[in-house]
Amino acid sequence: MPTVKPVAYADASPEVRAVYDDIMATRKIDWVNNMWTTLAHHPPTLKRTWESVKQVMAPGALDSLTKEMIYLAISATNNCEYCIRSHTAAARKAGMTEAMLGELIAVIGMANETNRIANAYQIEVDERFKQVP
Amino acid sequence: MPTVKPVAYADASPEVRAVYDDIMATRKIDWVNNMWTTLAHHPPTLKRTWESVKQVMAPGALDSLTKEMIYLAISATNNCEYCIRSHTAAARKAGMTEAMLGELIAVIGMANETNRIANAYQIEVDERFKQVP
Amino acid sequence: MPTVKPVAYADASPEVRAVYDDIMATRKIDWVNNMWTTLAHHPPTLKRTWESVKQVMAPGALDSLTKEMIYLAISATNNCEYCIRSHTAAARKAGMTEAMLGELIAVIGMANETNRIANAYQIEVDERFKQVP
Amino acid sequence: MPTVKPVAYADASPEVRAVYDDIMATRKIDWVNNMWTTLAHHPPTLKRTWESVKQVMAPGALDSLTKEMIYLAISATNNCEYCIRSHTAAARKAGMTEAMLGELIAVIGMANETNRIANAYQIEVDERFKQVP
Amino acid sequence: MPTVKPVAYADASPEVRAVYDDIMATRKIDWVNNMWTTLAHHPPTLKRTWESVKQVMAPGALDSLTKEMIYLAISATNNCEYCIRSHTAAARKAGMTEAMLGELIAVIGMANETNRIANAYQIEVDERFKQVP
Amino acid sequence: MPTVKPVAYADASPEVRAVYDDIMATRKIDWVNNMWTTLAHHPPTLKRTWESVKQVMAPGALDSLTKEMIYLAISATNNCEYCIRSHTAAARKAGMTEAMLGELIAVIGMANETNRIANAYQIEVDERFKQVP
Repeated sequence: MPTVKPVAYADASPEVRAVYDDIMATRKIDWVNNMWTTLAHHPPTLKRTWESVKQVMAPGALDSLTKEMIYLAISATNNCEYCIRSHTAAARKAGMTEAMLGELIAVIGMANETNRIANAYQIEVDERFKQVP
Repeated sequence: MPTVKPVAYADASPEVRAVYDDIMATRKIDWVNNMWTTLAHHPPTLKRTWESVKQVMAPGALDSLTKEMIYLAISATNNCEYCIRSHTAAARKAGMTEAMLGELIAVIGMANETNRIANAYQIEVDERFKQVP
Repeated sequence: MPTVKPVAYADASPEVRAVYDDIMATRKIDWVNNMWTTLAHHPPTLKRTWESVKQVMAPGALDSLTKEMIYLAISATNNCEYCIRSHTAAARKAGMTEAMLGELIAVIGMANETNRIANAYQIEVDERFKQVP
Repeated sequence: MPTVKPVAYADASPEVRAVYDDIMATRKIDWVNNMWTTLAHHPPTLKRTWESVKQVMAPGALDSLTKEMIYLAISATNNCEYCIRSHTAAARKAGMTEAMLGELIAVIGMANETNRIANAYQIEVDERFKQVP
Repeated sequence: MPTVKPVAYADASPEVRAVYDDIMATRKIDWVNNMWTTLAHHPPTLKRTWESVKQVMAPGALDSLTKEMIYLAISATNNCEYCIRSHTAAARKAGMTEAMLGELIAVIGMANETNRIANAYQIEVDERFKQVP
Repeated sequence: MPTVKPVAYADASPEVRAVYDDIMATRKIDWVNNMWTTLAHHPPTLKRTWESVKQVMAPGALDSLTKEMIYLAISATNNCEYCIRSHTAAARKAGMTEAMLGELIAVIGMANETNRIANAYQIEVDERFKQVP
């Protein structure tokens, strides 16, 4: 149970409903997941966050699948269960195969291992890595 | 300065040199970055880590560029300077454009924002997100 | 279920009961929450932690409500469910309204977003921000 | 040095300059800090992030000083040096005294301690803390 | 429920069974815990991870109990429930008493507190602490 | 440079000097490291933190070397440079050899790797690991 009451479509203000409608239209689905019904506790945050997510996750220089896998990698690093489960689902919907998920998780594990080894020894940045193209 | 003395090629044992040689051959470069010369402080960890990185980062179901961008996303989330700088360089070498980097960092920021909002409200996982294909 | 057996008041040693009594007297409540009954697994840690919390969270240059909201912001960032739920309750008891909670969570999300963007680009600290008054 | 080239006002596109101008006007200052000149590497992220920060950090149900101290608490928890230094400066400008900073840091330390103790014992959430008002 | 289907011994490929057999033989037990049956989703990661864990956790310059307590300290800091519970069990099996667990958790809390205080004030590293033996 | 002015012995109040004197006497050294001279910015936090550290780090069910290595493991996980460098020095002083440091860092890397793999797959806790002795 979240720490606030989620807002169902039937109980939502017109301002909140407009965001719910846009989520369903953009994603071509007929339901709204708990992320948004809970965020509706604070309508300005609901609106701003949805508009940001819509802009950031749209395909551009990176395709949707790559973006979803990056989102999942960060969520696993941060240990956010909601985010891990929703973005595993989203990445699969965007085309992630089980073999891709297996390799993704191997990279997640490896990056977290070497990040801590680099910290532990306080490894110095090589001069070549400081150059900006 | 790291907390231990890095091991230069000239001073390295045959066991350590073999790893250095394999790093240079695999990556088609003529130098070894500080990650490995510092890890040589403990040869079994040097060898095991290099072999794991070589296996995990090889192109497979995911290509090298995608893997490098995922590594960078995790390193930025963990705030590991060495890892951020070395994998920004590696991702560029693998073909990451400045537009791709800009979008990658937008996803990094957004995922970290919504991860914490999901935590703060203790948003409940939707039943649909619990289903395994 | 915690990894150790919590200690109920009836089963507690006089040393542990003295801490429980002080918690109830200080907070003007008639029960002891699981944080403390679990910490009683190691009485010296129970006593030291309670005395530190009592000192640090007392109103001083900062009022209790501000302190509770800071506690909640950190707990959400660390994803500690126990801490998120207990300090959301404590902040509400200290006067936090739903509008204040909504803005607090917006700041939590934003700070975590820009923290990672600052890391990802390795943004340099401005000279003006290094000056100490 | 950041991993990309910051964009000075003189070299900025009209789109980027418009953001810089709004930052200076909103904050009543005559310079733009590195956060924004580095973010200008990706103009859509610059614009979206600034508009979000402006909205989230404006005084509302919480005043500016409280918001800045929460930002600092999260930045210290995440160990983002840029963010710690810039928000320590911003909080002081908004009225934070040295005594308030001392108590803030005491809460930062304490929350991080008890968060990990709660994790380590896997303390169970009390039923009373699960109730939503 | 994990995000993938765990692989029971009866359903496992010969490659996966070989790892399961080695886990049971090495640990002198007759069951395989969920870590490994879930990792079997991606057999190369199962094999590589098990071989690394076997090598790293074997007694050497540090004994098994010390290694398990270090693992638990990191898992509590990262708030990984699976890891906290499995390594609390493993540390007890290796000889950790309740008094040792109590002191371990006290150190976990204290280190997390002072880590954040050091960050919050941006404490400078003393010259003496930069010297490498 | 820290965000506040450290307090040298010569400039310290009697209250602060008493803590400095106790640090030097307890550790049998003739200088006070920056952790404490910076914490002196807020004398109640200086006094409370020192007394807690003195109690928690004293040898008991765990010896000093084990406690210092646990502290280092957490500091590397949290990426606190000050803490990594000061506790690497302290652990060496307490008897940590280079071989022990090498194994410690291997455990730090491995625990951080498997923590994130457990998160990424949302591995379920085995029933046996939920039992409390």
